[in-house]
This record gives sequence, C-alpha cells and structure tokens, in this order.
Amino acid sequence: MSVDALPTRPVFYVSDGTGITAETVGHSLLTQFSGFNFITDRLSFVDDPAKTEAACERIVLAAERYQVRPIVISSCVDVSRTARLRQSGALVIDVMAPFLATLEAELDAKHMARVGQAHGIVDFERYHRRINAMNFALTHDDGVAINYDDADVILVAVSRAGKTPTCIYLALHYGIRAANYPLTDEDLEHDRLPPRLRPYRNKLFGLTIDPEKLAQVRQERRPNSRYASLETCRREVMAAETMLRMERIPTLSTTHTSIEEISSKVMTTLDLNRGML
Amino acid sequence: MSVDALPTRPVFYVSDGTGITAETVGHSLLTQFSGFNFITDRLSFVDDPAKTEAACERIVLAAERYQVRPIVISSCVDVSRTARLRQSGALVIDVMAPFLATLEAELDAKHMARVGQAHGIVDFERYHRRINAMNFALTHDDGVAINYDDADVILVAVSRAGKTPTCIYLALHYGIRAANYPLTDEDLEHDRLPPRLRPYRNKLFGLTIDPEKLAQVRQERRPNSRYASLETCRREVMAAETMLRMERIPTLSTTHTSIEEISSKVMTTLDLNRGML
Repeated sequence: MSVDALPTRPVFYVSDGTGITAETVGHSLLTQFSGFNFITDRLSFVDDPAKTEAACERIVLAAERYQVRPIVISSCVDVSRTARLRQSGALVIDVMAPFLATLEAELDAKHMARVGQAHGIVDFERYHRRINAMNFALTHDDGVAINYDDADVILVAVSRAGKTPTCIYLALHYGIRAANYPLTDEDLEHDRLPPRLRPYRNKLFGLTIDPEKLAQVRQERRPNSRYASLETCRREVMAAETMLRMERIPTLSTTHTSIEEISSKVMTTLDLNRGML
Repeated sequence: MSVDALPTRPVFYVSDGTGITAETVGHSLLTQFSGFNFITDRLSFVDDPAKTEAACERIVLAAERYQVRPIVISSCVDVSRTARLRQSGALVIDVMAPFLATLEAELDAKHMARVGQAHGIVDFERYHRRINAMNFALTHDDGVAINYDDADVILVAVSRAGKTPTCIYLALHYGIRAANYPLTDEDLEHDRLPPRLRPYRNKLFGLTIDPEKLAQVRQERRPNSRYASLETCRREVMAAETMLRMERIPTLSTTHTSIEEISSKVMTTLDLNRGML
C-alpha cells in the first residue's frame, strides 16, 4: 500500500526552544506506529503569546484540512503555553511536565522553568570542546594527519564504508576526537595492521560493509570506475575483514546500521563514556 | 559553589537501542534543575536479559557508592525490561510507555514494540539523502564550490563565525544541503552582496558574532596574527553587519547561540520544513 493510501494524521512538534527534544521523542513514538501517513511540522521558538496564537491557528487549519484531530508533541517549559495549545482541540502530549513533577518530588527541588536550557549554550567549555572535536574530525579525515596521539578513536575501513559521517557525529554530539584511516591498496596486501596504526591499537575500531552496498555507494561517486566495481569492492572488503579479525580489532558492519547506532556502538565498545553536548 | 560541593546524583540513560531518545529527554529534564551534580552514564543496546541484569548491577553499585537513589531514564521499548530496572530500587522514568498508551488510544492502533526503530536505518532513501547532504556540506565549505544551484541554504559570514558546524548539523540531521560563503576582505570593502551570491538571494542567511568572541576563537587558531586581532575582528564584523543589513539578509548572532539553535532559526526563517532524519 502506498503512503498516500494510508490514513493521514498531522503532527506538530511545538517548543519554546529549538524543538529538538519534542521532535526526538515524537519521532521515536511515531516510528512505533505503522499504517499511518504522519505529516509533521516543527514549530520552534514559540516563546510569546502571539507566537502561541499563530501556532494554534496552524493546528486548527490542519484539523480542517485533513478532517482529523492533529497530534501536538510539546516540550514547552511554560505550562500555560501547553494549556493554550490544548484549547486548539488537538491531542497534546507534553513530554516534559509529567517527568518534571516526578523529578521535583524525588529531588525535593523546584525546576527552573527557564527556556532554552537543553540546547542553548550554557557552558562555553563544552561548546569549545565540541567545535574543537569537529575541527579535529575534519582535519584528521581520510588519513591526512600524520599523528593520532590526540585521537580518542580511529575508525579503520576501506573507502566509503561510513567513516567520515561517524567521525563527525561523534565530534558534534559528544566532543569525541575521532580520526579515520582509510585502508589503501598497499595496506590490504598484508594481513597485519598498517605500521602507522600499530601504536594506537586500543583506539582502533573497524567498520565493514556488504560489498554490494559498497559498490552502490561508490558507483554514485565515480560511476563505472574500477574503484566502484563489485569485484574491487569484494576484494577490498574481504581483505579488510581478514586483517581486522586477525588483529582482533572490534568491527561493526555499517550495512544496516545508522550513524547513531555506529556511534553508540563505538562509544560502548571503547568505553568512551561521554555525555551528549 | 563548586560542582563538587553540590549533592551528587547518579543518572543512567538506559535503552535497548542507541539511547539517544533517553539521553535527549533526560538532558532536557536535568538542565531544569540547578544545584545538583548529576553523574550520567549511558547504557545502550540493553536488549537481552543478561544485559538487563548487568545494567541493574551497575545501578545498584552506584546507589551504594553515592549513598543515594539513582535516577534511571529509560526508553526501552520492552516494558518487562523497564519493570526489571525498577526492581533495582532506582527511580525509573519511562519516557516512552505513557505516551505510547495515549497514542494507541488516539490512533486506535497497537504500537509495534520493535526495538531500534527511531535511530536505526529504516529508509535507505532517507539515509542517502543524509549522506549526500553531508558530502555537499563538506565540498561546499568555505566558498570552494563555484555553483550554489543545488544548495538549500547558503550561510554568509566572516571566517570563524560558526558557518561550518551549522552546515554540517543541518546536513546530518535534516538532510539539508547547506553551503557556506566566507566574506573576503575584498567583499567587505563593498556594502553590496558579493556578485556570486546575488542570484541566490532567497537562500542566504547571515551569521554574525561579537568581535571579542571572534578574536578569542581566531586566537586559538592563529595566535597573535593580524587575522586574530581585535581590531581586524571589529572591522570585519562591522562591515559584514552593514552589508547584511543593507541587503536585508536575515541574520543571527552566534555569540550566545548553540549550533542547534542556529540550525532551528535558519530552518524557521527560510521555511525549510524538513523532518529529523
């Protein structure tokens, strides 16, 4: 059945901040329900009465247009805003309030009700760690850098197996200095770690990928090249997997794995316990 | 009061998937409470009974070590896992179950109770859009690319004002093709848009920054250079702000703004309504 044939349901992520919390929870919730065509809309920085009224208008319009009750996922810190949203007639899910009450009881403390705490700059040191890690990832991409002393992790894989996005994700969200090393043809002729990586054994994490998928990805980059041929991909992946196994480097296949999952596995495996920035 | 003098409270983000949802909500909740030293730990991929037991052990150990009840933020899809976590004695906040029940009633449908839906690959097309956007951001960084036809947005600013991290964030999380254009000395001599940008007026978004902060950031990159001097930074920022104002390009100061906030403002302003990938 095509998506268009499914029952449509408008969903609004509403927040007085960025809306990232609302959308993250909302996305998790919606992916648990198949069989619906959810039409999502993010209303960020709804932080005064006029913007709240404008948000309510959009919600009411969606109800009329789709002839169904909209769903609002709200992470507004100000409960009066959420109360106003409820008057729109939508089903309003407040992803903060119930837990804030629970935590207030547990901690015997009142919450601050201050907007923009979660995804605003509250800590310059953290912000700099993040930007520095990102610059590290960009300058230590594709084996360009000579020295891995400052790296927290070095991802090892053949070209186009998912190293760069993972490095950038780890830097941006966790401030982890992630370098990557692309295995060259010369490296792949040996069953041992490339000499440059040997001093950093504890920081290594291997990525692998189905040769068919790899060929597809490389094909987009350099169509009909030897580099993108299935034969080349098969040979490279097999050689890389053999080397990684013999050297006992923890390795993950990226074929059916998202960047978030790869990043989480890397942190869990190498015991890099960093909080989200 | 130093952080060490604050009452300590161990917090665990537990998930049978990546734990990103649990940590995002948990982080939002905790930032609403000042006056505590929260010690956070992420337990990802807790997806079988043995890992659940291991998680409970860590929670019990933390309770003994800190002599206080730990807080568990769980996004486990399997409710039996959450029930077992409760037996550890911790305060368990389940950030999914209450809302899933509400949505089941509203949608008149059962949720799938399948793990790893939110942050796993469920849609190859979306995944490719994300990777392609990221490659676009990396190859259209710092004005290297000649052509902006395919860009969804072009960030315009002086060097080191926050363009690159924002472009990468927009690509990684929303699949937005974000290019950036660094204003050169020559550009700054004129009060008009650089000729290369004029055909793309609707895609432009300006970033600015306090000259003091800019000097500090540049100082880290090239210490004691003319580039990093406060005088240079003041002159560049003033010229850039004048030009952006005269050309009526929407502009945001990044001085006290996080990458998430800048990204949200860009999407809201240019009406780029993309769902999170």
